Amino acid sequence: MASFEISILGASGGPLDGGNQSILLSEPGNCLHKKYICIDAGSGLRQIATMIASHQKRSSLKQNCWDDAIESFYERLEEPLHRFVDSKVRIVRGLCNDSLLDSDESIISGALRVFNNIKEYYITHPHLDHIAALVINSPACSSAEKTLWGLRPTTEALRKHVFNDILWPNLFAQKKMSFELHTLEECQSHPVKCITNWAITPLRVSHGLTVESQVRCTSTVYLIQNRVTEQAVAICGDLESDLISHKRLLANVWKHFSTTVPLEKLKCILVECSCSNATKDEHLYGHLSPNYLVHELKQLSRAYGRPLDGLQVIIMHVKMSPGMRDPRLVILQEIRQLAAAQELGDVSFSMALQGYTFVL
Amino acid sequence: MASFEISILGASGGPLDGGNQSILLSEPGNCLHKKYICIDAGSGLRQIATMIASHQKRSSLKQNCWDDAIESFYERLEEPLHRFVDSKVRIVRGLCNDSLLDSDESIISGALRVFNNIKEYYITHPHLDHIAALVINSPACSSAEKTLWGLRPTTEALRKHVFNDILWPNLFAQKKMSFELHTLEECQSHPVKCITNWAITPLRVSHGLTVESQVRCTSTVYLIQNRVTEQAVAICGDLESDLISHKRLLANVWKHFSTTVPLEKLKCILVECSCSNATKDEHLYGHLSPNYLVHELKQLSRAYGRPLDGLQVIIMHVKMSPGMRDPRLVILQEIRQLAAAQELGDVSFSMALQGYTFVL
Repeated sequence: MASFEISILGASGGPLDGGNQSILLSEPGNCLHKKYICIDAGSGLRQIATMIASHQKRSSLKQNCWDDAIESFYERLEEPLHRFVDSKVRIVRGLCNDSLLDSDESIISGALRVFNNIKEYYITHPHLDHIAALVINSPACSSAEKTLWGLRPTTEALRKHVFNDILWPNLFAQKKMSFELHTLEECQSHPVKCITNWAITPLRVSHGLTVESQVRCTSTVYLIQNRVTEQAVAICGDLESDLISHKRLLANVWKHFSTTVPLEKLKCILVECSCSNATKDEHLYGHLSPNYLVHELKQLSRAYGRPLDGLQVIIMHVKMSPGMRDPRLVILQEIRQLAAAQELGDVSFSMALQGYTFVL
Repeated sequence: MASFEISILGASGGPLDGGNQSILLSEPGNCLHKKYICIDAGSGLRQIATMIASHQKRSSLKQNCWDDAIESFYERLEEPLHRFVDSKVRIVRGLCNDSLLDSDESIISGALRVFNNIKEYYITHPHLDHIAALVINSPACSSAEKTLWGLRPTTEALRKHVFNDILWPNLFAQKKMSFELHTLEECQSHPVKCITNWAITPLRVSHGLTVESQVRCTSTVYLIQNRVTEQAVAICGDLESDLISHKRLLANVWKHFSTTVPLEKLKCILVECSCSNATKDEHLYGHLSPNYLVHELKQLSRAYGRPLDGLQVIIMHVKMSPGMRDPRLVILQEIRQLAAAQELGDVSFSMALQGYTFVL
């Protein structure tokens, strides 16, 4: 039985605006009324509305989405979905297979209801492509409780530089709204209030150095666990390999996984791979390329002491560089080839596609 | 002969993320190589790519766009374009009627070329829905000069709270990039460097009070003039009526127009009208509703001492509120009815539509 539904509101790593990283998580169940948490918020309400509208338009079409055409700006205007997703994966179009509208409800009203059922946001780091939609959507949540969570550098940035009455109204000071911001403790398991059996643990990673003062940017890997079934998924913010940072931050993440989650319960890792292997180290700017991603997965395999059989890895945050080939397809091919050579085990690699839900 | 092409990269006033206010301006001419300025940047590179892709898909279709279907999230999934645009207006689909691609060029490469031909950004105020795309697109402009301009509160906010190595890398400190930020003087005509005959004048307006300390938010109206033909367009940031602010800020704007631009040369005003007349004053939060917009246009008519015959008013920044009727159609109807009752003259009212270009 499935434990997690992972809806991709956005997966782009820029420089395209819109469709930036935002992952909606829920338990399988009644789509109309269930609660969600959201990891990062580079996309939001518009994508929810678009997914509902697309369901309305296509309700007469078949459910199977494997022949769906995915927008591409490269050699073709569209590429078939199966080029991006491993054939063993369970994937559905939109937020779920059911209609998300009550009778006589407009798409915007349905989208606002789903949006207001996102009760908790967990932000990996405060770069604008991971928070912009949350900010712009925030006036729509006046009637519903919402809590934003993050490690201290993230919550401090949101308070000081975003909801500061300069970049955006200070909604935390507006007493009519139940809009709250709280800080998580690193490595501490935290109960997800709106989904009874879930706990979430933030693990600190490096996202490179700042331009001016060469200070390290903190980012976060979130481990989400169902405390009853013990099943877990991990969702990573932007990050760089320990080989680049010369810190043991990702090593600590892999150690935490291997000591708290049995491998057969670790269903999926959603992880960035922003750049292809053609990118020089000095142009990675705190991100992964296939070489570094596969190296880090090899370290995870070593932490578990065995091949990563059964693990799903979903790639996100690809940067849309110029050229003729879709970088998502280039990166996926590079990863699959390297993973086979490194004998990682029976791992499936897919690309996170905006507007689709992975069922795990 | 046309003097201005005004391409709507985004016109939404939220709470939907993406498609937020961003207006690309250029002189009519060769689309492939001409230079642009951009007023606000709530949308950017993605919309340029989408407009080029849409041209490629539709190149076999007729040029006439009056029957185009416009996405709506209300009573219907689409509404015909003619419901949003006055029939006297000249409007084309996309950035222009010509193909924007060299042979063998991918859409992303064409979009990056257009993006790199946007040499100057003029920001009305630093709220995130007016700057997010510029920030997220910024890594794509490494090879091209770009200058951001604004009144002091805007440039200070961009420096202190955006490109601060916390919300985004400090690209101004990165010496490899020609990415600059400069402050404009209020009411001073400033030469547009990349379009020879153009000058731009920033005029200060009020966008309500901050939540916490009840300080006034500064926003900007930009007047863009061709110094040879004397033709002009005005593009407004978010703003509230003098009736609400109890300041003579919009009165000063109208006076400036009437003393520097002959009425027959004032081709168009792009102005926000975020809320319908059903919105109470205390929920306007520094924005206009049709009652206040028509009141202010009446003041402009008084400043000129005659009806505003021939003026085009293009509405933008409508907020997507819940309900069954598309608020853009509600607001346009309210404005047209009030304008007729107020005898503003032969003014045409249209809605700014993302992905279309007004030719003036």
